[in-house]
Amino acid sequence: MSSLSHFDDAGSASMVDVGAKPATQRSAKARAFVRIAPAVLEELPRNPKGNPLEIARIAGIQAAKRTSDLIPLCHPLPLTHVDVAVEVQEGGVAITASAATFARTGVEMEAMSAAAVAALTVYDMCKALDKGIEIRDIQLLEKAGGKSGTYRRDRGSGPGGADL
Amino acid sequence: MSSLSHFDDAGSASMVDVGAKPATQRSAKARAFVRIAPAVLEELPRNPKGNPLEIARIAGIQAAKRTSDLIPLCHPLPLTHVDVAVEVQEGGVAITASAATFARTGVEMEAMSAAAVAALTVYDMCKALDKGIEIRDIQLLEKAGGKSGTYRRDRGSGPGGADL
Amino acid sequence: MSSLSHFDDAGSASMVDVGAKPATQRSAKARAFVRIAPAVLEELPRNPKGNPLEIARIAGIQAAKRTSDLIPLCHPLPLTHVDVAVEVQEGGVAITASAATFARTGVEMEAMSAAAVAALTVYDMCKALDKGIEIRDIQLLEKAGGKSGTYRRDRGSGPGGADL
Amino acid sequence: MSSLSHFDDAGSASMVDVGAKPATQRSAKARAFVRIAPAVLEELPRNPKGNPLEIARIAGIQAAKRTSDLIPLCHPLPLTHVDVAVEVQEGGVAITASAATFARTGVEMEAMSAAAVAALTVYDMCKALDKGIEIRDIQLLEKAGGKSGTYRRDRGSGPGGADL
Amino acid sequence: MSSLSHFDDAGSASMVDVGAKPATQRSAKARAFVRIAPAVLEELPRNPKGNPLEIARIAGIQAAKRTSDLIPLCHPLPLTHVDVAVEVQEGGVAITASAATFARTGVEMEAMSAAAVAALTVYDMCKALDKGIEIRDIQLLEKAGGKSGTYRRDRGSGPGGADL
Amino acid sequence: MSSLSHFDDAGSASMVDVGAKPATQRSAKARAFVRIAPAVLEELPRNPKGNPLEIARIAGIQAAKRTSDLIPLCHPLPLTHVDVAVEVQEGGVAITASAATFARTGVEMEAMSAAAVAALTVYDMCKALDKGIEIRDIQLLEKAGGKSGTYRRDRGSGPGGADL
Repeated sequence: MSSLSHFDDAGSASMVDVGAKPATQRSAKARAFVRIAPAVLEELPRNPKGNPLEIARIAGIQAAKRTSDLIPLCHPLPLTHVDVAVEVQEGGVAITASAATFARTGVEMEAMSAAAVAALTVYDMCKALDKGIEIRDIQLLEKAGGKSGTYRRDRGSGPGGADL
Repeated sequence: MSSLSHFDDAGSASMVDVGAKPATQRSAKARAFVRIAPAVLEELPRNPKGNPLEIARIAGIQAAKRTSDLIPLCHPLPLTHVDVAVEVQEGGVAITASAATFARTGVEMEAMSAAAVAALTVYDMCKALDKGIEIRDIQLLEKAGGKSGTYRRDRGSGPGGADL
Repeated sequence: MSSLSHFDDAGSASMVDVGAKPATQRSAKARAFVRIAPAVLEELPRNPKGNPLEIARIAGIQAAKRTSDLIPLCHPLPLTHVDVAVEVQEGGVAITASAATFARTGVEMEAMSAAAVAALTVYDMCKALDKGIEIRDIQLLEKAGGKSGTYRRDRGSGPGGADL
Repeated sequence: MSSLSHFDDAGSASMVDVGAKPATQRSAKARAFVRIAPAVLEELPRNPKGNPLEIARIAGIQAAKRTSDLIPLCHPLPLTHVDVAVEVQEGGVAITASAATFARTGVEMEAMSAAAVAALTVYDMCKALDKGIEIRDIQLLEKAGGKSGTYRRDRGSGPGGADL
Repeated sequence: MSSLSHFDDAGSASMVDVGAKPATQRSAKARAFVRIAPAVLEELPRNPKGNPLEIARIAGIQAAKRTSDLIPLCHPLPLTHVDVAVEVQEGGVAITASAATFARTGVEMEAMSAAAVAALTVYDMCKALDKGIEIRDIQLLEKAGGKSGTYRRDRGSGPGGADL
Repeated sequence: MSSLSHFDDAGSASMVDVGAKPATQRSAKARAFVRIAPAVLEELPRNPKGNPLEIARIAGIQAAKRTSDLIPLCHPLPLTHVDVAVEVQEGGVAITASAATFARTGVEMEAMSAAAVAALTVYDMCKALDKGIEIRDIQLLEKAGGKSGTYRRDRGSGPGGADL
């Protein structure tokens, strides 16, 4: 098993030096789910006044661009694309975030940050009715590009690939 | 059931006007859990070199201060305290974040944002070994102050107070 | 005529010291107009898919909170409310932004910045079809609170109160 | 007429994916005009104490670098140059801002944002004397580079190329 | 000797809880000196073209407002005043920065940050001619307000009050 | 002697246009020293609770990524590496910061900013015990890459290469 690249020999947290890596196309996709009681979901405004959660999409997109400012050891990257989908589903709101770049390191954290901040924004919009809302299962769905190649999460698999 | 304060009559998202509310002491506490496989947890550096996740604590504290920049409808608040605890437990890393202010609105989002960003930072530190790590159960534990008074989450209760 | 409070005796730009001013309720409202050709306006998506310019509203709200970061001599203020309205009208898009605080100085710049950034965002959304779009007449509509009291712009008046 | 690249098929605002575009030299220039009454212009400090509006130049340069943070769907770009000129003219202050990069998308918004924030800063410096000051005609003067090639605004032309 | 308020009992760095402190007028002043060779100082542009280091003043003022974003354990404060003076002297450039607020904690770090960033900006302006320039003696000159009362540095005293 | 590249012919501060420069590997290293009285140094927590100044390392790393936001004429750069070392020594705390990029301009300011902000954070952690602490000798140790080639500071040399 490889060791944790974010710790130096002295065991303190450090940024990975990506200067020797080639710049390549990289992308990542992450998800989050905001579990909300049906009574609260029903309170969300209906069309045609617009998607009440459009604001969460936008907050997620902006968070992706601010990832290196939020996560101390992330590299600033020239993102070529960010997209966030926010969908009301039974039992809550599902968020999917994707990010892409042409750079020396990947964009997993940009996708994860976008999903997390979009979820926080959904929470903010609904918390007046139910503080028990929770954000669940922020996880990486897939990544592509770079030396470690493609990763795709198995449906229903958890940490270490264990079944849930 | 009260309606969603973050939507105006036209159904579009808007900031709550807190100008007429009195400034009072307010606090909130939130948690997050990062589910990590044992093999990965074992790779974290040991003392005496220091807490490998100290960086996540600091990222969470800074995120609390940046909440109004991340969450579009949050008010900028003069925080009087922010604290984040990051503890390696069986099955993962537990994060508890608290925030306090003397202001016209509460700090639930500051505590939630601190917990979420600390969790993202833990993910970032460990993702080289396991992309299947997931962030679970970002939730508000308690809040105090303000007109809506004190909220305290029941152990094991979920959205809408439903049992889990 | 009073002198320019933002210049010291040596004539260099400096922040106004508001430490001796009382904190009071203050508000301001500003407007901007984005002049867009009819053919471009017609290309904007129709409902029920949602207000295509919701994103400009949100960008404006966030810009108000970032005013002291954008305008070098502005004071950081604990805003109690920000609102931005974006309406498609004949000949373009009209933006109205308002801000409020309880503080030692006013929020004219917060309202002006919100209007300007919302207008820039509208431009960004439409520029693919017409780079000739222009942002016109970013102006203060009214302010209230503080020693200088209430200001209300006369319809159709310009700088120095001159008729247009 | 091509459609609006910032809206997806579902009609919601989204970032343009520039991952497939080649990185090329790109530049843009924008202008803004701050209309100020003569009595106010005369109050500006004289040399040799320095250009009273130097601060607006600097605010504009910094705003260009913060464009992707202000405008939700803008891409972060490694700017190679930003310049802002601020000149006192009859009837007000004229601002010209230019930006350049070697990237996959253009810098129109960087130039527009720099012009807008420099204009807001001029307003801030002068508002103590006249709240009726207005920012007029923020517009793109030219852009070069990229697939859409060079654009140059005709003197006195308005949206859609209509004469003013 | 009191213990370090920024470390909790477990010895990890934490933000001081100022919620119980009264809000009072507080101010602080700091200095920095940028040591520059005479030949470089002579290259600075002369008036009447303006103070070549005006840009450092402005960078320092903006840094003061961003202190809680730069220094992890600083509280966000509603600054009522920030001022920075930058003066070319024999042997280099002297910077003095002051900050003030009405809040529950002091502004020493705001004054120190303003002085440091103004000094870095002076370095940036001059480094093309001499990379050996150094920033020296960033120190607190005085502070007032708050429970610890007034502090005034003795001329020529160093850490612990030792003579230099 | 070459002239100051940060001033245009009119003598006003301006960003250097690096559009024509080739992108190359560039790196820089800077240092700072925080002079602290022995009695204060002894108050720092001991292991195994962790390096009390880890927070300063992280603040420095984040400051490097924010350099173009802090220093008005710096270009935003895609940093490939940042590292900061913070070591308690006799008489104080020594900080060494390094930065690297593959870009059209160098990273001296990123290394200098990281060292300065790490030093400010050390000051913040210790100021409760001694406001007389001072930050000394923020200086560039070396730089590599780019047309001006490699620079390496002589031990004990000062501005203009003069002996200290």
